[in-house]
Amino acid sequence: MIKKYLLAPGPTPVPPEVLLRMAHPMIHHRSPDFSPIMEEVSEGLKWLFQTRHDVLIMASSGTGAMEGSISNFLSPGDKVLTVNGGKFGERWGKICKAFGINAIEIMVEWGEAVDPAIIADHLKKDPSIKGVYVQASETSTGVAHDVKSIAGIVKNYPDTMFVVDAITALGVFDIRPDEWGIDILITGSQKALMLPPGLAFASVSDKAWKMNERAKCSRFYLDFKKERDNLKKNTSAYTPAVSLIIGLQQVLRTLREEGLQNVFVRHSLLANATREGMKGFGLELFPKSSPSDAVTAVKAPEGFDGQQIYKRLRESCGITAAGGQDHLKGKIFRISHMGYCDKFDVITAISGVEMVLKEMGYSGELGSGVRRAEEIFLIL
Amino acid sequence: MIKKYLLAPGPTPVPPEVLLRMAHPMIHHRSPDFSPIMEEVSEGLKWLFQTRHDVLIMASSGTGAMEGSISNFLSPGDKVLTVNGGKFGERWGKICKAFGINAIEIMVEWGEAVDPAIIADHLKKDPSIKGVYVQASETSTGVAHDVKSIAGIVKNYPDTMFVVDAITALGVFDIRPDEWGIDILITGSQKALMLPPGLAFASVSDKAWKMNERAKCSRFYLDFKKERDNLKKNTSAYTPAVSLIIGLQQVLRTLREEGLQNVFVRHSLLANATREGMKGFGLELFPKSSPSDAVTAVKAPEGFDGQQIYKRLRESCGITAAGGQDHLKGKIFRISHMGYCDKFDVITAISGVEMVLKEMGYSGELGSGVRRAEEIFLIL
Repeated sequence: MIKKYLLAPGPTPVPPEVLLRMAHPMIHHRSPDFSPIMEEVSEGLKWLFQTRHDVLIMASSGTGAMEGSISNFLSPGDKVLTVNGGKFGERWGKICKAFGINAIEIMVEWGEAVDPAIIADHLKKDPSIKGVYVQASETSTGVAHDVKSIAGIVKNYPDTMFVVDAITALGVFDIRPDEWGIDILITGSQKALMLPPGLAFASVSDKAWKMNERAKCSRFYLDFKKERDNLKKNTSAYTPAVSLIIGLQQVLRTLREEGLQNVFVRHSLLANATREGMKGFGLELFPKSSPSDAVTAVKAPEGFDGQQIYKRLRESCGITAAGGQDHLKGKIFRISHMGYCDKFDVITAISGVEMVLKEMGYSGELGSGVRRAEEIFLIL
Repeated sequence: MIKKYLLAPGPTPVPPEVLLRMAHPMIHHRSPDFSPIMEEVSEGLKWLFQTRHDVLIMASSGTGAMEGSISNFLSPGDKVLTVNGGKFGERWGKICKAFGINAIEIMVEWGEAVDPAIIADHLKKDPSIKGVYVQASETSTGVAHDVKSIAGIVKNYPDTMFVVDAITALGVFDIRPDEWGIDILITGSQKALMLPPGLAFASVSDKAWKMNERAKCSRFYLDFKKERDNLKKNTSAYTPAVSLIIGLQQVLRTLREEGLQNVFVRHSLLANATREGMKGFGLELFPKSSPSDAVTAVKAPEGFDGQQIYKRLRESCGITAAGGQDHLKGKIFRISHMGYCDKFDVITAISGVEMVLKEMGYSGELGSGVRRAEEIFLIL
């Protein structure tokens, strides 16, 4: 028997009570069975997003909401800034290309956070830039970009919107769209929301809705305005992913009970213990600065293959973590600590890494990483 | 206590064993846990679709696949034929408009099937028409269009593709894309596939893939070619709706055990008993011809409000059926008999309608509809 531990940065584990809630008999989406659920979930999402604006719900992966944040607000030929500091930052550029948007890509070395001053420079030189697109947490590198500072810059440009992909950030650490000035804030179901993949969410500011009126990019299935109009009637433009929304109702209740600040404190503690534990075992973190509290990217030690670490964690420990993507393949491995995660998930991850690397011939001292994590948990 | 019966044309009931299968712990989509599931599901979908072509899987509602069947194969300014004989036929025109496609809408009175000769005439006059878009089963009216005959016509035009929305048809009655010449065949998860909403599917012929090479409409999230390339590696372009695909694995096993022809025979029998039962109680069917085996649309008797029938079925019988949409609201009600449905679901529906209409003052004889349905089931 080998027990399984899902410690990858999405999908993340779904709490058993949520799994069972979603296993209830199907109900009809255009019926009085479903509309009170939509109503509760809409309210709960505003609380989670810390916004007074409607939070749209789409039956799609997070990429659907990323596309929608471009196609619903821009016209072919429009110019935007995108921050490319990893696989998901790169995706902004690809979507822009598909929609005929002129994306100026700010290239950031993978593992580093963008310098907000670069964005300020671009906007000063060219106020015709219609939007700035960035990740709050770049899943591929484990780096958090400073969206608060960037929001403070973009805020001064009345015709430029600020779009944040918080797919692996929302519900992990504090992001305040209304207070800071984030015009579109995106997340997905399978990360801190502890649900199966299949739902994407987006909050939209008044500034962005004004841009929506003139936006000429093609869109139909991912039409944000149509979703907003339907949401006001506690329904959706097209058939919603009913079972996932029922799971969301349960998740939002659980999170509200814990309290949003407590959720952030928990994630911060788990992330800190993971980082310190890995360093305690002699490993080096991949991010040069600003590590994300959602996922920790660790460098494979010199002479060790990161994919082998990933593979052995799965095969001998039952732990599904993540390897590196694209040119980081083999160079790093990643451990998630977001969503349905507590201190013993972190202990399990560090212990698994210790045993696997020891077996591979690494020289670190067994238990030294776990000890460091325990000290963090005990505030020693 | 009131027991609940879901007899609406989607979402349809999900079998308990499928609900429980989907309640298993989450697994990672880019891992050896998931790829064998994708492999099995891909094979099973080819069997279900009766095609040798890949069947793409999208995390979206059926409308996502409808959009993709336009955006992946056409360029702005292209001319197509769409059959508008109901709410879903009308949607083709709306999607075309959103993508700058010139749609010639063939208007068919709601409740009637399109005359294939009209399509033949259009194509003869204008062979520059790039595609013909139609529903196999128009859910809003309960009418089945004759897609076999239309396929036989479109087949003769090498630069025209034939696209069929079989969202409430596939797995209900026989549709043979390769044999008949359907270039794109679409379905969704929440109908005959007995799953929660959130997945859309599309098979694509070689003729359509050739058109894909020149198609210039904007697309990113619903990029069919990217999905095909990933499907060959038993994965998906973006995070798939893992739990629904796991449910699909279970559903396909169940359907294969029953056998495809038996599935069709079952649906045909249930549909026939529903139609005859309603007539046996003195009611009139809405379709003038070619009723669909997926859903039966029944006219509210003269002087009775269809929405009241729908409402009373829900409130006093626990039966969620469907009312009429748009201008049919109040004029009809609809009973589904697709998916996880057997003869006592049909008996329940007819009995519920008998009791509700009797209470509303209708003159029909109680039990006369049920009697007629029983005769059909006993082949009397």
